[in-house]
Order: sequence, then C-alpha cells, then structure tokens
Amino acid sequence: NRPRDLGIRIGVLPVGAANAITDVAGVSVGHTTLQIGDSVRTGVTAILPHGGNIFQEKVPAAVFAGNGFGKLTGSTQIQELGNIETPIILTNTLSVPVAMDALIDHVLAQPGNEHVQSVNAVVGETNDGYLNDIRGRHITKSDVIAAIQHAKGGMLEEGNVGAGTGTVCFGFKGGIGTASRKLPAPLGGYTVGVLVQSNFGGVLQINGVPVGQRLKEYAFSDQLLNNADGSCMIIVATDAPLDSRNLERLAKRAFMGLAKTGGIASNGSGDYVIAFSTATQLRTAHQSQTPTHQVELLTNDQMSPVFMAAIEATEEAIINSLFAAEAMAGKGNRKVESLPLDRVLPWLQAATDPK
Amino acid sequence: NRPRDLGIRIGVLPVGAANAITDVAGVSVGHTTLQIGDSVRTGVTAILPHGGNIFQEKVPAAVFAGNGFGKLTGSTQIQELGNIETPIILTNTLSVPVAMDALIDHVLAQPGNEHVQSVNAVVGETNDGYLNDIRGRHITKSDVIAAIQHAKGGMLEEGNVGAGTGTVCFGFKGGIGTASRKLPAPLGGYTVGVLVQSNFGGVLQINGVPVGQRLKEYAFSDQLLNNADGSCMIIVATDAPLDSRNLERLAKRAFMGLAKTGGIASNGSGDYVIAFSTATQLRTAHQSQTPTHQVELLTNDQMSPVFMAAIEATEEAIINSLFAAEAMAGKGNRKVESLPLDRVLPWLQAATDPK
Amino acid sequence: NRPRDLGIRIGVLPVGAANAITDVAGVSVGHTTLQIGDSVRTGVTAILPHGGNIFQEKVPAAVFAGNGFGKLTGSTQIQELGNIETPIILTNTLSVPVAMDALIDHVLAQPGNEHVQSVNAVVGETNDGYLNDIRGRHITKSDVIAAIQHAKGGMLEEGNVGAGTGTVCFGFKGGIGTASRKLPAPLGGYTVGVLVQSNFGGVLQINGVPVGQRLKEYAFSDQLLNNADGSCMIIVATDAPLDSRNLERLAKRAFMGLAKTGGIASNGSGDYVIAFSTATQLRTAHQSQTPTHQVELLTNDQMSPVFMAAIEATEEAIINSLFAAEAMAGKGNRKVESLPLDRVLPWLQAATDPK
Amino acid sequence: NRPRDLGIRIGVLPVGAANAITDVAGVSVGHTTLQIGDSVRTGVTAILPHGGNIFQEKVPAAVFAGNGFGKLTGSTQIQELGNIETPIILTNTLSVPVAMDALIDHVLAQPGNEHVQSVNAVVGETNDGYLNDIRGRHITKSDVIAAIQHAKGGMLEEGNVGAGTGTVCFGFKGGIGTASRKLPAPLGGYTVGVLVQSNFGGVLQINGVPVGQRLKEYAFSDQLLNNADGSCMIIVATDAPLDSRNLERLAKRAFMGLAKTGGIASNGSGDYVIAFSTATQLRTAHQSQTPTHQVELLTNDQMSPVFMAAIEATEEAIINSLFAAEAMAGKGNRKVESLPLDRVLPWLQAATDPK
Repeated sequence: NRPRDLGIRIGVLPVGAANAITDVAGVSVGHTTLQIGDSVRTGVTAILPHGGNIFQEKVPAAVFAGNGFGKLTGSTQIQELGNIETPIILTNTLSVPVAMDALIDHVLAQPGNEHVQSVNAVVGETNDGYLNDIRGRHITKSDVIAAIQHAKGGMLEEGNVGAGTGTVCFGFKGGIGTASRKLPAPLGGYTVGVLVQSNFGGVLQINGVPVGQRLKEYAFSDQLLNNADGSCMIIVATDAPLDSRNLERLAKRAFMGLAKTGGIASNGSGDYVIAFSTATQLRTAHQSQTPTHQVELLTNDQMSPVFMAAIEATEEAIINSLFAAEAMAGKGNRKVESLPLDRVLPWLQAATDPK
Repeated sequence: NRPRDLGIRIGVLPVGAANAITDVAGVSVGHTTLQIGDSVRTGVTAILPHGGNIFQEKVPAAVFAGNGFGKLTGSTQIQELGNIETPIILTNTLSVPVAMDALIDHVLAQPGNEHVQSVNAVVGETNDGYLNDIRGRHITKSDVIAAIQHAKGGMLEEGNVGAGTGTVCFGFKGGIGTASRKLPAPLGGYTVGVLVQSNFGGVLQINGVPVGQRLKEYAFSDQLLNNADGSCMIIVATDAPLDSRNLERLAKRAFMGLAKTGGIASNGSGDYVIAFSTATQLRTAHQSQTPTHQVELLTNDQMSPVFMAAIEATEEAIINSLFAAEAMAGKGNRKVESLPLDRVLPWLQAATDPK
Repeated sequence: NRPRDLGIRIGVLPVGAANAITDVAGVSVGHTTLQIGDSVRTGVTAILPHGGNIFQEKVPAAVFAGNGFGKLTGSTQIQELGNIETPIILTNTLSVPVAMDALIDHVLAQPGNEHVQSVNAVVGETNDGYLNDIRGRHITKSDVIAAIQHAKGGMLEEGNVGAGTGTVCFGFKGGIGTASRKLPAPLGGYTVGVLVQSNFGGVLQINGVPVGQRLKEYAFSDQLLNNADGSCMIIVATDAPLDSRNLERLAKRAFMGLAKTGGIASNGSGDYVIAFSTATQLRTAHQSQTPTHQVELLTNDQMSPVFMAAIEATEEAIINSLFAAEAMAGKGNRKVESLPLDRVLPWLQAATDPK
Repeated sequence: NRPRDLGIRIGVLPVGAANAITDVAGVSVGHTTLQIGDSVRTGVTAILPHGGNIFQEKVPAAVFAGNGFGKLTGSTQIQELGNIETPIILTNTLSVPVAMDALIDHVLAQPGNEHVQSVNAVVGETNDGYLNDIRGRHITKSDVIAAIQHAKGGMLEEGNVGAGTGTVCFGFKGGIGTASRKLPAPLGGYTVGVLVQSNFGGVLQINGVPVGQRLKEYAFSDQLLNNADGSCMIIVATDAPLDSRNLERLAKRAFMGLAKTGGIASNGSGDYVIAFSTATQLRTAHQSQTPTHQVELLTNDQMSPVFMAAIEATEEAIINSLFAAEAMAGKGNRKVESLPLDRVLPWLQAATDPK
C-alpha cells in the first residue's frame, strides 16, 4: 500500500515501472535486517550501481552534504576523482567501520582485483540508537556481505528493512523508502531513482498537507521538543549521462525534496546525498588503456527536468518510507508508532485533486 | 493584503512585529524603482546590516550558492574572512558593475574611510530581461546611492519595487518579498528576517496547496515549457550570535524554504543566499586595536530552531512577493499577470486549518 | 634578459617556444598601461582563451582561491557551469566594476550576441595602491577594451605593463610575468602556460636560493614588518583536454608554484588561480543544437605531469615578473626598487648546476 | 642527527624546544610499529590534541584536502561542526576501518562517555603497499589502542615508526617527521607544530637545493617514471586561538610547505592537512550547559605570521622524516634506500649561509 497506489500523487512527472531506484537499469539493492531480542533493531542496505566489478569500472558520482554532522566515508575521493568504485553501504553510525572493512574484503576478493591495494569504501549511516542497542555494534562483516550478495533489481522492500530497521522520522517509524521518475522523451527520457534511509525530523508535510501540525507532533512543539535529530542518507541514481559536476548539482536537488517533506536539516542530522550515473559509456576503467576517454555528456541546459525528477523522487521516497514502516518496539521498552494512516490518509485524499 | 493578513499562516513559529527582515533590529532596506516608458522595468534594493559605517564595523556573514549560475560579487572574500563590509545591493544582471562602482563610491566617501583602498562590494542580481530592456543598462550610480540613502526599518514595500520591479516567478509577476520569525524565549528568543528578490520557476506550491498544478502553469507543462529560469537572491538577517560557519549553515536552510514553494533551482537560475548576524559584539573593526577579539557565540546545539525560522521565513517571503506583485506590461509588449488571487485565495483558505 | 636566458633553469620540464602563456595555441594577451604624472601607476591585462566569440564558444574552466581576500568576479558561475564565457581581465582592486562593465560592453557588441542578456564577466585584481592613486580610479572602459583589442600571441611583455604596472612583490617591484612548459610526447605532449600579476610577499626564494634572507628583506623581518600583503592573480592555460574538475585540480598546483617562490599567502593577499583548457572539442556552444555533447577527456591517471608543468611554470612566471620589472616611483614620492640583479644574479648562477 | 642539528636551517622563524608538534602544550603522540617477517612494514600513529576526554571537550579543527585521493574519515563533520572529538589516527590505507573501530572502542570506554552513541572517528592514511603486505591488513584494534595509550609529549621518534614505518618519499625511505615554530612575542608568541607521514613524490628540494635533480631521481625522470604517488598526511597543531575558519586557512598553508619540498600532489597522492587549536577556552563541551559560548579569537589580521610558521614547520617536518628514515627491505624483496646523506649533506651545508 504505497501512497501512489492509494491515489496520493506527489509531483507532476511520470514514475518508473517499479517507482524505485531500481528503475534505473542495472541498479540493484540488498538488505540485511537485524531484529534480535528486545534491543537489536538495525541493519545494512547495499546499493550497487551496476552488476559488474565496480572497482574495475567506476561510475561517475558526487556527494552533497546538506548537513555534514555524519560519518559518511569516501567523500573526499569521490569529490576529487568524480567517481565511486564500490557498492554504497548504509548502516548505523557505529557500524561504519565494520561496513568499510567488509567492503574492502568484498573488493579485494573479486576476480580481477588481485593486485588492488587501495579501496575507497563508501559507507553512509544514520543513528538508530533510539530503538537499537547501537553501542552493542551488532552488525558483522557477514551482514554487510550478505546485503551485497542479495542485491536485486525490480520491486523493493521499504520500511523496517536493512539500514532503515530502527530509524525514526518526524517522530514516527521511518525506514527505507524509494521512488523514481521517468522523464518524457522530449525532456530526455531519462530515469532518476532515489533511495532514502529516513531518520530525521521537522514539521511533516505530505504532498503539501500539514500532517505534523494536525497531529500536533513536530519539531519544537510541546510534545517533542527535539525530535529533529537523526539523519537522512539519500542515494540518487540516474541513467542520464552526467559527469560529477552535474551529479553534484543533482544531489543538491535531492536535498530540496527532503525540504518539501518538512525536514529542517537540524543541527544533529547528517543529511547527505550521493548521486551517480549508470551511463555505461561514462564508466572509468581502473587502469585505462588509453590516456583519454571519449564520453557523451548531457549539456547544462538539459539539466532542469532531471533536477525536477530528483526533487520529486526524493520527496516521494521519504513519504514512502513512512507509509511502509510499521510500529516498532526496541531498546529500553521504547516504542515508536507508525504514521497513523487511518487519520492521515483521509486528509491526503481530500487534498488530492482528481486526475 | 499579505497572505498572513488573509489567514494564510505558513509554518508554526511566531512572526516578528512587521513580518519583515527589518524585525531584526538595526536592519534597514531601501529601494529605487525604475519604470520608464514601455520597457524600463528594473530597480535597485539595498539591505543595510546596521546603521553605522559597515566598512569600519564589519558583520559576520556567509554565502550559500544553491545554484551558482549568477553574478554575485564578493563571495570569495565573504567566505575567506567571514564577514561583509558594505551594504548588500540587489539589481539586474547587467547592472552589477554600476552597483559595485556606486558601492565603492559610497564606502570611499564615508567619514572615517579616507584611507580605504580596498572594498569588497557585495552585489546580487537576477535577470529581469523578460520585461525590462536589460541590455539598455538603465541603472545609474545615483539610483544605487539613492537606494542606500532611503533605507529604513519597519514595514517594507513588497512586489514591484526595487530590484523586484521586473521579475517573474512561477510564471506570474514576482518581486520583492519579506518575512520574519521570532523564536520563543525557550528556543533563544532570536529573530530571523528574510528578504527575497523572486525570479524563478518550478511547480508553485503555496503553503502546501498545489497552485501551479491547479492553474496548469508550471515548469515543463505544455503552456510554459521552460519558465524555470531566472534567479532568486535571498538575504537572511538574524540577531542570533552566529559566526560565519553557522551562518553558512543557516543560509543553506533558506534554500530549503525556496524548495517548499516548489522552486527547482533550474539550470539557469542563480539562487544564492547571503546570511549575516547583527549581533553587535560580533562586529569586526576594520583595524582592530587588539590582536584578539572576544565574542559570545551560539553553540551548534542551539541552531535547529534558528534553522527552522529561516526555512519558514524564506518560504513566506517568496509567497509574500507573489501576493504583492501586480500585473505588469513591459518590453516588447509583453505582459506578466499577477498571481490570480481570486482563484487561488479560496483554495488556500480551504486548506488552512482553524487556529 | 629573462632568467632562463641568463642560465637560471627553474624545474625539470622543457619550456614552450616563447616560454609564455601564449605557447598554448590560440591564447592571446593584451595590456593597457597607465603611467600618468606622479601617481597613476596602473593598468589592465586581458587574457583571451581563443580568438573567436568566447561567449558563443565557452571554454572549460575552474577557479581555486588560495586565499580569497580579493574581489574576483564570476567565480561562482565558473564553478557551477564549469566554463568561462568572456576574456579574463586583470586590473586594480577598485577598477573591477569598470572592467566588468567594459567586458559586458564587449560581449553585447560582438556579432552574434545581439540577444545576449546575461554575461559572466571574469575580472581579477590586485591592489596597486602603494604606488598608484587607486582611489582615483583612473581606469576607463576604453582602457579595458583596448587591452582586449590589442591582445596578441607570441612573445609577451613582462614587468611594469598592464595590470602589473604598479605592483610590488617580496618588497621589490613586481608586475606581469609569464612562462610555459611543454610536456614530452610520452607524457602527453601538452602545453601549460601561466601568466601572473605578482603583488605579494613572503620570504623570496629564487630557484631555491634564499634571496630574501640574503637581502635581509622578507616578511616580518625588521625592515619590512608586513610586506606580505597584496595579491597574486595566476592564469593557467592548457591545451590538455581537461574538464572543470581536473582544471580545478590543476589550479591548485599553480598555488604550489607560488609557494616555491616563498609566497606565504598572507592574510591580506588575494591569491586566486583561474585555469582553462583551449581544447577545441571541449568548447560549449552558448545554445547547443543537441542535448548531449561528445568530448574526449584526459583521464585522472594522466594528470601528474600536467600538474608538474603548472607548478614549474607558475614559479618561473613569478620570477620572470621580478626580473622584468624596473624600479618605479609613484604616489606620495614612494619608490619601489627592482630586484637587485647585480647582487642576486651571481648567487643564482653559483647555485645553478651545469646542464 | 636532525637537519637542524647539522646546521640546515629551514626558514627564518625560531623553532620550539623539541622542534616537534609536541611543542604545542598538551599535544601528545604515540606510535605502534609493525615490522614482522619479510613483508609486514606498517604501523599506527596517534596524535592527541589534549590529555583529557577529547569527546567531552572537543577542539576546534579544520581539514584541507590538497588532493583528495585518500580515505580520510571524519572530514565532513569536522567541516560542519568545526571541531574534532577523537584522537587523530594515522595508518595504512586498508587499515582505516580497524582504526576507526578501535577509536570508537576507545571513546565508548572512556569514563563519562557511557551514553555516547555517535563518534566522529578521524583516521588518515597513506599507502605503504610498496614495502608492506597491505592486503594482509595486519593492524589490529590493539595496535591502535596501544598507540593512543603510549602517546607522550616532548621529543618524538621520527622515520620508520608508526604509520611511517613502510612509506616512501621522493623515491627514498620516508616516514614520520615533525617540526615546530615559536613566533616571537611581537608576532603573538604562538607555537605551531606539525607532524607528517611522508609518502609522496615529485622533484625533491631540500632547503632550496635541487637534491632530486642532482641525484637524477625525480618524478618522470627516466629512472622513476612515476614515483610520485602515495600520500602525505599533515597534522598541524597550534595554541593560537583560532576557530575552524582560520584553521582551514592555516591548513592550506601547510600544503604550501609540502610544495616547497618539491612535492607535486600527484594524481594518486592523497594529501590532506588536519589543523587544530589547543586553546583551552575554545574547547566545546559535548553537552553545553549554556546556549552560548564565550571565546577569544585571533583576528584575521594577525594570521600571517601563524601562516608562515605552518609553512616552515611543514617543510622541515618532511625533510626531518627523510633524514630520520633508514633504508628498509620489505615485501617481495623490495628495498628502499634512505636519502644518501653522505652525498646530500655536503650540498646542503655548502648552500647554507653562515648565521
């Protein structure tokens, strides 16, 4: 029961087949979910830009730090060289090292990488310590490898899975969400897909409806003085042929999508966007046989619809995460409720214009 | 007839006395408006951080380039030194040089500046060339000086004044808009004021209501294939004691307010935010008598409500500009209509919850 | 009598034919020099990336601010779009506006630009106010246009010409300097050319020889407590096919060349590098006929020799400026001596190994 | 036998008591060195800004990426919040995760940190894979903890210790080096200390003497076509009261010191600077009891001598690392010679002016 299936249409652009980051051909996603006993509520999500050896065929990429209070690894090399060379791993804050280590294991072990001595492991995180025994650091290297190995395309799970297992968003249960847009052919025909790990706060607005206010649950309201901390990792994939400069611009627009949900990028929220292009001709060989590289790039002038797609898909991915996530009890007998759809859905439907 | 007077309440935080950037004590704003003949539709807006000699008493400041396709001057020095030393001038794209020159005149002529040999003139711009004979470059140095001299506090004009005279926003007449927030005492009690020069596009949303879609007028809709270009200059003032690092973070949040109106920061839109603090104890003497400077700064932990205030005030300032701007004819017999309040207002009021 | 003609060989790479920025094919340079009466000692230098309509055929470019205490215009758009669309103008600090205005005149008047309404004028500056009546703002628009019109390739004037007319470097007369490197074919065969406007301080070192110390004239020595302020504009041209990301990296290396002369990038020194590529296939049409652009780019792996060339050429260009500049008297009966070659040259020659 | 003891005086400013980063009061450094069998040549170096609980009393800090081809962790949070909250760990490229994990262990276990759920572990690295079996990932968490626990002030070991055990610099054995400057009282009296992990290439210049050329061993010479890769981590400590903005500026100057040794920041070299201030009054409590923080900051105008100190100390620290490092055999029967002091020292002494 995703919002769009219920008639809630965010934005004006058409969506892709699965309304997921996997609508961008070649992208796959895998999750490892840890729900153990009373207090382990965490996991790992892996996003693979393509199905081959990513280290040997790097993809153009960029990072935008909306609010850099987070532990994302790999960002300076992405910025310097304009590419990523590993799957992207998302997990909890204190498990970043084990995820990096597992990514290095993964890369060193891949056929063709026998002589690799340097790996820029890209790991993002959010803090799930409200529900999860985060100090226990329950993620293992096997959990990370499993997420990579189980990565698949097509329809994706959302909500309390993978790195979204224990997250909280706008005071409700958050989690993994995804969405996509497919531009009409006259606007380029490209697909933009987004996956989020939602764990932040602000004043929730769903498709413009002031849900946070109506529920009297928002940042600095009496009930929840400071529900705004946490983080949001946003992954943007596209098949548009963009270099790192235009991918950085695209990443900035995803942050605008977060803003439309009412997120405020509070002081404690590590809000990062990683954007990459899957265009095959833009991949960089680890050791190029030639000193130059011939590529075909979208011009600056054509970027606006791609920007709009990223904004819309990010907004929808966050809302999707809230719709999918179910109430969860965790550490210290805490419980986080799910978004009360019984109350919210009628509001949203009332505000939705007929097609 | 500002939206708030009509019952449209954007956000959850209380507003300042004038709901204007001038609610931040000491800030003043002046306009020069040029409407001459059929095709001159432009102007100048000056924002003064305080009433003294700004060059001799610099204020902490920062810039965020949401989309750097613009001609803002002074940005690298603001970033390096963390302050501004002139009034901020807004005008049209091709009149940036004359505005800089006038600012230098102004600074060199001020008592106490007799030996000044270097001035970091801060001038922002948007392109009003749809309605204005921008190639004619009609702004003069006197126009700029006049805007500075007429600067005042209190209630401000909005809409077709100053640098907003000829602008277009979401396909309707844009212009100057302003708004403010005053944080409750437990959240610090600080005031955040915003002034915008609105001249951009996207898919207009007013307080969450999909106005652009209902009017069938938005970026990449059939009617207006590419109404998204232009620019938005956003000025954020606060009396919170922030250094340039936290002011840069604050500036980023103003960009989130723009996002909430449906702006997409299209390729051609130069969307910049300049943020400054008016806290007297943070002013830097041009030639310090002492090697160190004692200051009292807000801690990172206290920033979230200030961020929220900037988001809300920016969103409202943009909407205020649309409400205030009246239809205008200009260059080449072009006409830009104002936002059709007769249609829009009932929608907004219907979507507004009772207090 | 350039240093290299006197046997002083800086670095290990071969130089281009003219040992000048104009060794990069298509690049031309023009100067307007103002020496009037007792106190006008200033000028304009124009660098043209190619001989065509630069606005219609933009070149890839990047900026690095080594120390951003300066008034460079156009930097945010260069960073956002990755290109420049005007000649680069250098002049004095307070004449930046008139230079921008003249650049706009120039662009608007060029055939083919009849409908242009937005120009990103790139103007760099240094402060020549020690010798020059900078507050008099003696540069006119005609001076700027003349520098553009007189631009030529081949051998260039150095020293007290153009924007270097009134500058001071390491306590001696500075000015314009230029140099180049031509990589051997196995390293790509590319040419890197540099032009500097030297006006900064530190502890002068020429090809490693501690000239500043021997002359007892350096930053924070007794004689010159604070000779370090000023600025250095550095322009780097190359025919290597680099996009803006690798041009930004290249620009950073030019700053390393400045370091090798003993420059310290003092607080008051606005030290900027602008780097561009002249590779024809990388030019961007103002209005592209196609949504994508096919380009051939040097891979990251091939950058190191290009970096080395930029370091060496920058170091040599600065030293060239000092060798060429003659002693000058100016404002307020001040006089700045030239580098005392009679004393310095024997030191340099003694330190030079036989070939 | 450090260069200075041998009469080689780099720069013009006086040095601190130990000519080491530990001249900055409170800073301590610890090493774990792993030389096992034929092919383990690696280690860990820990730099502690002060002797207390760093997480509870964070110090102002900044990062500058001279060339971001590296795996430094923690950089975005340092930039966002302007501080560091852990010791700084240096190690080899593939051991970054284990070092992060150990840092987290360390922080979680410290008294007072029982409720900490988020740690920004700062780990820098260089690639010692030429001599070291880097793929074997021999560093353990205990090795990292030991480096922290053994940290001390005063005189420091240099050369083949800690994270410098297996590094190569300018084709010779590199390693850990350190140096300091103590400004004269009229210039503020502050101390600047630097520690480097030298592992890069270029055209070696020692105190201006063209050692690389004379030894015919430099980047892109016949012998060593590409000895330029590797990395240089540079840590800058100062007791000057600087906030993160001025620390970032200071970090940039350390990169200038690297340039003076002939380093070229080659494509493959991850050259980063981390700068921090030990000024007690600038420390930030993890959970502040008050919403504002009173601090006393050095003004921009006073920065130039501090900049100069960082340039000089960095240059000398790199040279110190080369003087201290002894020849080493390692993985695959490779051997890296030490700098041939018998040949080099007479050149340096001949070039040194009498005091």
